[in-house]
Amino acid sequence: MFDSVHEECGVFGIFDHDGRRNVAKDIYLALYALQHRGQQSAGIAVNYNGAINHHKDLGLANEVFNEMILNGLGGYFGCGHVRYSKEKSVTRDEAQPFLAKHIKGQIAIAHNGNIINAQSLRDELSERGAMFQSASDAEVLAHIIARERLKTESTEASILNVMKDIKGAFSLVIVTMNKLIAVRDENGFRPLCIGKLGNCTIVSSESCAIDALGGTFVRDIEPGEVVVVDINGMKSYKDNCVKKGSLCIFEHVYFARPDSIIDNVSVHFARKAAGAELAMTKPVEADIVVGVPDSGIDAALGYAEKSGIPYGIGLTKNRYIGRTFIQTSAAERLQAVKIKLNALKSVVNGKRIILIDDSIVRGTTTASLVSLMRDAGATEVHVRISSPPFLYPCYFGTDIDSQDKLIAHRLTEEEIRISIDADTLAYLPLEGVKKMMKDSKTGYCVGCFTRKYPVKIEE
Amino acid sequence: MFDSVHEECGVFGIFDHDGRRNVAKDIYLALYALQHRGQQSAGIAVNYNGAINHHKDLGLANEVFNEMILNGLGGYFGCGHVRYSKEKSVTRDEAQPFLAKHIKGQIAIAHNGNIINAQSLRDELSERGAMFQSASDAEVLAHIIARERLKTESTEASILNVMKDIKGAFSLVIVTMNKLIAVRDENGFRPLCIGKLGNCTIVSSESCAIDALGGTFVRDIEPGEVVVVDINGMKSYKDNCVKKGSLCIFEHVYFARPDSIIDNVSVHFARKAAGAELAMTKPVEADIVVGVPDSGIDAALGYAEKSGIPYGIGLTKNRYIGRTFIQTSAAERLQAVKIKLNALKSVVNGKRIILIDDSIVRGTTTASLVSLMRDAGATEVHVRISSPPFLYPCYFGTDIDSQDKLIAHRLTEEEIRISIDADTLAYLPLEGVKKMMKDSKTGYCVGCFTRKYPVKIEE
Amino acid sequence: MFDSVHEECGVFGIFDHDGRRNVAKDIYLALYALQHRGQQSAGIAVNYNGAINHHKDLGLANEVFNEMILNGLGGYFGCGHVRYSKEKSVTRDEAQPFLAKHIKGQIAIAHNGNIINAQSLRDELSERGAMFQSASDAEVLAHIIARERLKTESTEASILNVMKDIKGAFSLVIVTMNKLIAVRDENGFRPLCIGKLGNCTIVSSESCAIDALGGTFVRDIEPGEVVVVDINGMKSYKDNCVKKGSLCIFEHVYFARPDSIIDNVSVHFARKAAGAELAMTKPVEADIVVGVPDSGIDAALGYAEKSGIPYGIGLTKNRYIGRTFIQTSAAERLQAVKIKLNALKSVVNGKRIILIDDSIVRGTTTASLVSLMRDAGATEVHVRISSPPFLYPCYFGTDIDSQDKLIAHRLTEEEIRISIDADTLAYLPLEGVKKMMKDSKTGYCVGCFTRKYPVKIEE
Amino acid sequence: MFDSVHEECGVFGIFDHDGRRNVAKDIYLALYALQHRGQQSAGIAVNYNGAINHHKDLGLANEVFNEMILNGLGGYFGCGHVRYSKEKSVTRDEAQPFLAKHIKGQIAIAHNGNIINAQSLRDELSERGAMFQSASDAEVLAHIIARERLKTESTEASILNVMKDIKGAFSLVIVTMNKLIAVRDENGFRPLCIGKLGNCTIVSSESCAIDALGGTFVRDIEPGEVVVVDINGMKSYKDNCVKKGSLCIFEHVYFARPDSIIDNVSVHFARKAAGAELAMTKPVEADIVVGVPDSGIDAALGYAEKSGIPYGIGLTKNRYIGRTFIQTSAAERLQAVKIKLNALKSVVNGKRIILIDDSIVRGTTTASLVSLMRDAGATEVHVRISSPPFLYPCYFGTDIDSQDKLIAHRLTEEEIRISIDADTLAYLPLEGVKKMMKDSKTGYCVGCFTRKYPVKIEE
Repeated sequence: MFDSVHEECGVFGIFDHDGRRNVAKDIYLALYALQHRGQQSAGIAVNYNGAINHHKDLGLANEVFNEMILNGLGGYFGCGHVRYSKEKSVTRDEAQPFLAKHIKGQIAIAHNGNIINAQSLRDELSERGAMFQSASDAEVLAHIIARERLKTESTEASILNVMKDIKGAFSLVIVTMNKLIAVRDENGFRPLCIGKLGNCTIVSSESCAIDALGGTFVRDIEPGEVVVVDINGMKSYKDNCVKKGSLCIFEHVYFARPDSIIDNVSVHFARKAAGAELAMTKPVEADIVVGVPDSGIDAALGYAEKSGIPYGIGLTKNRYIGRTFIQTSAAERLQAVKIKLNALKSVVNGKRIILIDDSIVRGTTTASLVSLMRDAGATEVHVRISSPPFLYPCYFGTDIDSQDKLIAHRLTEEEIRISIDADTLAYLPLEGVKKMMKDSKTGYCVGCFTRKYPVKIEE
Repeated sequence: MFDSVHEECGVFGIFDHDGRRNVAKDIYLALYALQHRGQQSAGIAVNYNGAINHHKDLGLANEVFNEMILNGLGGYFGCGHVRYSKEKSVTRDEAQPFLAKHIKGQIAIAHNGNIINAQSLRDELSERGAMFQSASDAEVLAHIIARERLKTESTEASILNVMKDIKGAFSLVIVTMNKLIAVRDENGFRPLCIGKLGNCTIVSSESCAIDALGGTFVRDIEPGEVVVVDINGMKSYKDNCVKKGSLCIFEHVYFARPDSIIDNVSVHFARKAAGAELAMTKPVEADIVVGVPDSGIDAALGYAEKSGIPYGIGLTKNRYIGRTFIQTSAAERLQAVKIKLNALKSVVNGKRIILIDDSIVRGTTTASLVSLMRDAGATEVHVRISSPPFLYPCYFGTDIDSQDKLIAHRLTEEEIRISIDADTLAYLPLEGVKKMMKDSKTGYCVGCFTRKYPVKIEE
Repeated sequence: MFDSVHEECGVFGIFDHDGRRNVAKDIYLALYALQHRGQQSAGIAVNYNGAINHHKDLGLANEVFNEMILNGLGGYFGCGHVRYSKEKSVTRDEAQPFLAKHIKGQIAIAHNGNIINAQSLRDELSERGAMFQSASDAEVLAHIIARERLKTESTEASILNVMKDIKGAFSLVIVTMNKLIAVRDENGFRPLCIGKLGNCTIVSSESCAIDALGGTFVRDIEPGEVVVVDINGMKSYKDNCVKKGSLCIFEHVYFARPDSIIDNVSVHFARKAAGAELAMTKPVEADIVVGVPDSGIDAALGYAEKSGIPYGIGLTKNRYIGRTFIQTSAAERLQAVKIKLNALKSVVNGKRIILIDDSIVRGTTTASLVSLMRDAGATEVHVRISSPPFLYPCYFGTDIDSQDKLIAHRLTEEEIRISIDADTLAYLPLEGVKKMMKDSKTGYCVGCFTRKYPVKIEE
Repeated sequence: MFDSVHEECGVFGIFDHDGRRNVAKDIYLALYALQHRGQQSAGIAVNYNGAINHHKDLGLANEVFNEMILNGLGGYFGCGHVRYSKEKSVTRDEAQPFLAKHIKGQIAIAHNGNIINAQSLRDELSERGAMFQSASDAEVLAHIIARERLKTESTEASILNVMKDIKGAFSLVIVTMNKLIAVRDENGFRPLCIGKLGNCTIVSSESCAIDALGGTFVRDIEPGEVVVVDINGMKSYKDNCVKKGSLCIFEHVYFARPDSIIDNVSVHFARKAAGAELAMTKPVEADIVVGVPDSGIDAALGYAEKSGIPYGIGLTKNRYIGRTFIQTSAAERLQAVKIKLNALKSVVNGKRIILIDDSIVRGTTTASLVSLMRDAGATEVHVRISSPPFLYPCYFGTDIDSQDKLIAHRLTEEEIRISIDADTLAYLPLEGVKKMMKDSKTGYCVGCFTRKYPVKIEE
C-alpha cells in the first residue's frame, strides 16, 4: 500500500533432539514473530516419522493456521516460512515451504532471498527433463539439490556441491527425512542465526523469533556456512565460507525487527547510530525530533540524544491496520496515510519539527507525512532520512528491481525536497553507514546506494 | 458414507475452433454434469494466449468455482476434472488438472483411471532425477510425457511413444500450448467420447456432459486412440488401437449417469436389460418391484416390465443429502440410511417386495434397506442384484483394491441372504452381462466377478 | 431458479420426557428431511435449563450447522425451522426460529404459513408501543402472544385467546421456558403432525421427518388445535377447532415429499391418483409416459398404470444441482433446464410421449421440457398436468401472490399449448382433485384454481 | 488475553448536509480509527431515502466489511459501532447498531457505556408488554425512546424526556428517519465530540476518527447535551446539562488513543503529565526509563524528561498479534507475553530499569514484564504505574465489575511488589490525577480508585 521497499521472506526451523516435542506450534509462534518479513503467505512443514507433512496458504500466520491444523501437524522437527511476493498475482502455488519427493526421499525447502541466475538454472534443468509447477526459486533449488543427490551420500553433500552454481541471495531452511539443514549463501545477503530452546536447536531469519519462543540466541550462521542438525546434534560445514559476506543494509535500515541482533549488530542500535550520525552530519535547529513509526522511531531517539533536541511523539500509528484496505486514487492514498498515521497536534503545533524516516522510495508517503505535520501546525518540517539515497535496483530479495520507481534516481535532492514540501531534506552520508555497522562481523551490501554489487549482475 | 464402490474421476475438454469463446464456464457446467464421478475436488485449466491458468480445490464444482473465478479464467480451450480419491486423507495437492512447465512449454493433465505400474514408473523417473509433489498418477504421466518431449516434435508424438509403457486405466484430457489432446488406454477401461457444440470440439468422460451444454454426441474415442484438437480441427491417431477394449462393467452397472451412452450402449438400457434378465433367470412371486434410488431404478423397471409384476415407488431419496453429515457408530449408520432413503409405507405395507439394487459391496446398506422395507410392513423381501457377485479387487480406477472389504468374498450367497435378512437373494448371472452389453462396440472388463483381468496383475 | 411455486417453510419440534436427550442433533436431522420446504435459511432453538439458546443463518441445514455448533446447543426440548422467503433480499434477520424475552420469560417461534392481517396487527401493536426488528410474521406472533401473557396464566392460554385475531395460515412450533407448543390455524392450511421417538414427543410439518429420525407417526394435528408438550406428557386444546379445515392442495400436488402422509392422505398416492384421473379424463394415444422428476414421477406412474401405456424413464435429473448456479438470460434459462434435466434419447427417440408435470406456473420450464423431448427425437409430445390450471394468487404461504406471473391467467389453454409447443395439453379437472383427496380427514383449499378462498381476502 | 481493563465500545456518526455523499465508507474508516475501543463486533447503519439498512457481525471492521458490502450500504447519513463485550459468550445478536421499527418509523442506536438501572428499566418495559431480543442496553434505550415517541413530536423530545430516567453511562449516536442524534449522559462518563468534514457533520467517540477522515475537530459534546443533525444543520439541546461531568479517568489512562483530545485534554499530554508527576513524587535512581508499549510509552517519556534519566526503547511490540492466538496455562500466558512483547537486550542488559505501565489489574502481565527485563539482563527493575491503585469495581462501561479480580484489592503495595518481583513499585498518587487533568473542562470519575462514584450504586 505504501511506497516502501519490501522484504521477501522469513524462514525458521527447529529440531528437538529428544524427539518428543511437537514443533508445529513452536514454528507457528516463530512465524508470528517473523510476520513483518512477509504477510502474503505462511506455511509449515513437519517431519512425522520420516514423512513430511505440510500446510500452507495465502494469508497471515494466524489466518492460515488454527489449533486443529497445528494439532494435525505432528513431528519433532520442521520448518516454516512467511512470504512477501513481488509478483502482482499472488497464488497459493507460490507459498512455501516447497515440498517434493525425489529418489532418496522427501525434502521441504523454505527460502529467503533471490536467485539471480534462476532462469538459466531452470533452463538447464528443463533440458535435462525437469518439470516445474511454480515460479518460485525454492522449486529450482529443490531440483538442483535432488538431482545432485543421485551422485552423493547425503543432502548436505549435495548442497555443498551445488552452492557454487547458485548465484544470489539464499538463506535456506531445509527439512529432509532425518535432518534439519540451514544454508546461508556465501555473501550472506539475508540473515540466518542459530538458537537453543531446551534440548531443541533453532535456526531463524531473526533472533526475535528465538526470543518469542523463550529460547536463547547462540550465534549467526556465517556467509557460506551449511549447518546440519539431526538427532545426534549439530554439525557445521564451512567449505563455502569464502567471502567476508555482505548483509543487505536494508535489514538494519528497515526490514528487521529492532529487537533482533544480526551479524553481531543490534538493529535498534544500528538505527539509533544512524540517527546520531544524522544529528552530527546534517544538523538543523528545531524544537522537537519526531520519528515515523515504526521504523523511524529508533533513529529519531538517536538523533534527539545526540542533538539535545527533545524527542517527541508526534505521530501515532493505528495498530489495527490490516491488509484488506483498498485504495486507488491519489486522494485515497493520502487518506490511507491518515488512517495509518495521525499527527499529535498537541505535540506538533507551533513547533519546528525534525521528521526522521528510514528511507524514501517513491516519495509519496514522505510528502503525505510532511503535509500531516504542517496541517497539525508545524512551523517548519526538516526531513532526515536514516539511510543514503536509494538510487539503484536491488537483485537480492527485495521488490525494488527497477530504478524507475526510485524518486532519488529521477530527481536531485533539492527537487525531492520541493516535491515533498520539506523545509530541509538530508540523507545519512554513505560513510555514516559504517558507523551503524561498526560492530558487524560480516560486511554489508550497499549496492542500492552505490551500484557496486558483491555479485556480478548481467544486464 | 455408504458401502458402495466408487469411481475415481471425471474428465472434460473443449476447444473453440473460432478462438473466441471463453470456455471456463462451459467446463464448469460440464463438471456439474460429471459431478457423480467425483465429489472430492474440482478443477479447471484454461489456455490463455499460450499460458495455462488454472483453479482447483477440494469440494463440489459449485463450491470450488464462482462467477468471479470463472471470469478470471479466460481462454478458448481448456480441460476440467472432478475427483474421488480412495486415499483417506484428501488434500488439495491431489486435485487436478495437474499443471506443469517443461522444456517445451506448459501442460495440464486431467486423468481418470489408475496406473498399475505407477510406482515403478515413479522409481524409474526418480532415478533419472525427477521430483514429485503429489501422489497422483497425473503427475507421473506429466513427467513421462514431458521427458519424451525432449526427443519428439510434438506432445502427441510423445504420448504415442510412451503409451505402451503405461499399464492400467487412463482416460486423459491434456491441454498444451496450442492443443487439446484426449487419450484412452488400449483397453479403454474408462469411457471417453467426442462431441460438438457449435464450432467447438468437446471430449468428455460421459455423453451427459455434452448434452448438458446443448451439444451433440459425435462418437466414442476408441481404446488406444489419441485425439488431437487444435485451431485447424481434429486428428486421430490409432497406432495404439491394438485390442478390442474392455470397458469397466461398473460404468454401466453403477458409475455412469443413465442418460449417458458409452461405447454404443445406453446406460439406462443396459440397466433395464439387467433387470429383465434377472426377471427371466431369477424369478420370484411378489406384489411389487422396488428399485433402490438412484442406480436400482432402471433395473427395477426392466424387471417389472419383463415379469409383469407392477413397478412401485417404494423408496424415496432425500435430494439434499450433502457431504457434511458425520456418522460413526452402527446405530448412526442405520440412521444415515434413513436420512438418505425413506420407505413409502403406503406402497410397501402388506406387500411382497422385490427389491432391486445394483450391487452388494460390504452388505451393510443392503441390510438396512431390507430392514426399512420390513419396518414399513413388507411381508416378504426378495433382493435381486443387477450384477454378478463382486468377488475380486479392481485395479483400474475404483476404490475396491482389496477383497477383504467384499462380503461376497467372505460369505456364501446363502450366508449373505441371512446376514441381510432377505427372504430370497439372487444375483445377475455372469451370462446376463452379455445381454446388458450386447450392443457394445468394445469388450468389457468383468475382472471383479471373474478375477480374469485384461491386464496382467503382479501381486 | 425455475418457474415453480414455492413453499415458504418447514417447522419441527421435539421434547424428551425423560429430560436427558440432547435434541439439537435430532432437530438438525429433521431439518435435513424437511429441507425441500425451504432452502434459504435454517435455525434451531433449544431450551437449556430454562434458557433458550439458538443458532440460525442463511443456507442449507448442513451449511448452517456443524458438529461443534450442535454440541454447543444442549437441551432436551427445542424447535427448528427451514425457510424459503418470497422477498427478493434475503437477510439473516429473517431467519427463524424467532427468539424473544418477555415479562414471563423467553419464547422461540418457528412459523410456516402467511398471516394475511399481519400489517394491521403490526400497526396495532406499534400503537401500543411495540418495536419490530424484522419483517417476519413470527415476530408479530411473538408480540401478540407475549402481550397476551400479561393477562394469562400460561402461554397456551394466551395462544388460545389470540388465535381468533390472527387471519391466515400458521403452523407454529413454539418453545417456552418449560413447554413445547404446536399450533395449527383453524383452516389447517399448512400441515402439522405428531410423532413419537422413544419417550420423546415430536411435532413436524411432515411425517417424513419423523421417519428420518426412526420415530413413528402418531396423528395429524387438527385445524385449530393447540398441542402442549411438557415433562408430564402431551395435552390437546381444541377450543378453536371450529372448521373442517382446508389444507393447501399444493402440499399434495408439489410441496410435500411423496413419502409423507398429510391429513390421512399419502402424498405419493394422491399424486398417483391424479395421474390415473388424468388417464381417465384426458386420454391420448402414445408410446410412453414420462414424468418430470421429481414431482411428476408419481403421477406418471399412475397415468401409465391406468392407461396401460408403458411407464418410461425419459428424463434424468442431476443430483448435484445446488443453489449457486447463476442465470440471467433466456438462453441461459434453457441451458439451466438442460443442466438440471436431461432427456434419455434411447427412451424418447421415435416415440410419442405423454409428459406429466405437476403444474404450469410461468410456462417457461414446460416449454423447455417439450423442447428437450423433441430434440431427443420424440415424434409427439402430449403434456398432462396433474393439477388444474393455476389461475389465482395464493395468500396462505406460497410465493405466488400476484396473478400476473401466472400463464394460465393470461392465456387460454390452447394459447398455452402453442406457447409450450405441445401436441396436446390437458390439466386435471377440478373434480379430479376430489379423487386425489378422497381419504382426506380435512377439507382442502383450491383457491388458486377457483378464487374461492376459505378466508375472506381484502383487496 | 492480557489482564487489562477493557473499554466496551466506540460510536460514530456522520451526516452530509448536501445529501450526496455515500457515508458508509467514511463510517468504515472511522471504525478503523476507533477499533482500539472494541474488537469483538463492528456495525454500520445508514439511512437510504428514509429506510435504514445495516450490516454488522462479529470481528474487526476489516473482517466484517468489504468493498461490496459497503457499496450496498447507500445513504448520506448513518452511524457505526465497534464493540468489546464483557460477556463470556459473544454472539452476533449483541452487535450494534441496534435497529428497530416503531410506530413513528425506524431507529438505529449505537451505544458506548453501561446503564446501571438497565434491569429495572427492562422489567418496567416488560410489564408494559415489551419484548427483548438481546441483552444489550441499546435495545433497552431503543424501547424507552420508541415508547416515549407515542407522546412526543420528535425523537429528540423523547430523548430529552427520558434521559433523567436512565442511570449510568451512555454516549449514543442515533439514526432516525431524517436525523442524526448524539447524546451524552449528564455525567459524560464516555467521550463524545463533534467534527466537520466538508459540508458533513461528524460525531465520534474520539477525535482521532475525525482526523482519520481528514476532518476537523469542532468541540466536545457536553455532559447531558443532545445534538441533533439534519439536512438544515445542527441544533443543541442542553436541558439536561445539569452537572459538571465526570469523564472516566481510564479514557486518559489507557482506553483512548494518544492522538485524541477529550474534554480539552490531550490524551498524550495527560499521560506524559502522569509520568512527569511520577518522576517528581516517586523518584528512583536508575539508568533508563522504559515504557510498556503502547499505553506506557507517553508516561515513560514524561518520566524521562522530568527526571533527566534517559528514555529508552527497552520493549518492542509485535505489530501482527491478532485475536486468534489461544492460551490456557500459566506457562502459555508467559509465552503469550513474549510473543506480544520482547525485551531489547542491547538496551536493557546491565541497566537499572524504570518500567512504566499504565495500570495493574490482575498483576500477571506486570510480573511477566519484570521477568522479561531481568532475563534481558536488567540489574534492577523499578515499576512505576501511571495511575493510582485500581481498588474498586467500575459500573460505567468497563469490564471490571467485580473487585475480586483486582490485585490491589487483595494485596498491599509491598505484597504486589513481591508478587511481581520488582525492586520497587510505586503508583501515581491520587493528587497526581489532578495534574494530568488540569486542562479538563469537565470533571472526571475516579471511583475505581476511591469508591466515590458520581452516581449512586445500589449493591
